[in-house]
Amino acid sequence: MTDKKQIAFVLYEGLTMLDMIGPLQVFTGIGDPYQAVVVAETTEPMDVSGGIMKFAAPYTFDDVPNPVGIIVPGGGMPTIRAMANQRLRKYLLDNVDSTEFIGSVCTGALILAAAGLLEGRDATTHWGYYPELEKFGVIYKRQRWVEEGKIITSAGVSAGIDMALYLAARLVGEERAKQIQLGIEYDPEPPFGRLDYTGVLEQAITPENFSDEQRQMYKEALTDDPAVYERLMN
Amino acid sequence: MTDKKQIAFVLYEGLTMLDMIGPLQVFTGIGDPYQAVVVAETTEPMDVSGGIMKFAAPYTFDDVPNPVGIIVPGGGMPTIRAMANQRLRKYLLDNVDSTEFIGSVCTGALILAAAGLLEGRDATTHWGYYPELEKFGVIYKRQRWVEEGKIITSAGVSAGIDMALYLAARLVGEERAKQIQLGIEYDPEPPFGRLDYTGVLEQAITPENFSDEQRQMYKEALTDDPAVYERLMN
Repeated sequence: MTDKKQIAFVLYEGLTMLDMIGPLQVFTGIGDPYQAVVVAETTEPMDVSGGIMKFAAPYTFDDVPNPVGIIVPGGGMPTIRAMANQRLRKYLLDNVDSTEFIGSVCTGALILAAAGLLEGRDATTHWGYYPELEKFGVIYKRQRWVEEGKIITSAGVSAGIDMALYLAARLVGEERAKQIQLGIEYDPEPPFGRLDYTGVLEQAITPENFSDEQRQMYKEALTDDPAVYERLMN
Repeated sequence: MTDKKQIAFVLYEGLTMLDMIGPLQVFTGIGDPYQAVVVAETTEPMDVSGGIMKFAAPYTFDDVPNPVGIIVPGGGMPTIRAMANQRLRKYLLDNVDSTEFIGSVCTGALILAAAGLLEGRDATTHWGYYPELEKFGVIYKRQRWVEEGKIITSAGVSAGIDMALYLAARLVGEERAKQIQLGIEYDPEPPFGRLDYTGVLEQAITPENFSDEQRQMYKEALTDDPAVYERLMN
């Protein structure tokens, strides 16, 4: 037991590193009464971002049964696999009523959708995956983050940093959020400026246009819950 | 042996997560002939950012003897400790002539300085540590990144993302760098805007104003190389 309000960052095999570390870095600075913690099915080290390194969580889901908030990072195929991860989804569903927020970064939104949390809602995800998100009755918004009730979703990978600063301000006030921003010296200067989204969304792949190989990969990734596969493909 | 040009990201106990993961995420997308790899003294998992989670490198320094570039992340006291880490410094010095670049994020610049790589140069670091960097004959520049010859340093924590995109463009061209930026959807929208540096540098602590406790902490952290401690304090 702890007297802190725990914000649980969900680690799973193969997630995209920055999806988790961006917002986690922000929340390590949040201070009392909040505490960021990393949870996973196991505390064993697991590959991230195609195996470039390993991350290990100090806590299992059971160790953090009552988080005040949950953040679910995204990734590529490993995230599709996580959409059918019953243990992970159970963690979300067990806590959806008691938490103050459930958030996702990038394709983490697909996991929230597979858990049934985004039906009929506005939400965002990585631009390349928005057609998949829409298969779950979601209205995709190309925004940095989208908040609807207690669900907050962010755009791809790096967007989790912006979302986390916004959330931090909601939890502890704008002044402390700004102190966090100063601490991580978040004063972005992308060397080639901001993104130009012209023609970008058209590059997103829709399940209708999947190759046989892609369909097969998705089918295998979603073996544990064929209903998710069916939903994506229809 | 590998036929890839390896860019070695140095992991050490206690570093600040985003310092490493920001630029590492950028470089995982760089493609041939380059390959980002994570190296450390050991492949055992080690605490990062005050123990919030663990990172593990798949390679030791010996496994990656001829990197084409090296990136050194920063942190708080663990980075001060790393300034006296002879094995880490040897890795830098063994490769300084053969690499195309050696870079640092945040207080990683202090490690480069302790290794003697920044004497008389322009460089940058986290704003809160610039007086310590100046103790090593460095001309601190409050810039997002500073390039001088083969040495490139970036400002605090999140600045490594901007530096990495710049570096990626230098290595593989602006078009591929922009594709990486699109892949990580790096289109920053800090919810409270950019940082206002007014009065910020005055908050940096100079060694002259260290408390006795701080001095003692530094002394202990630098036991393996008292000359670094002396340099910092004088």
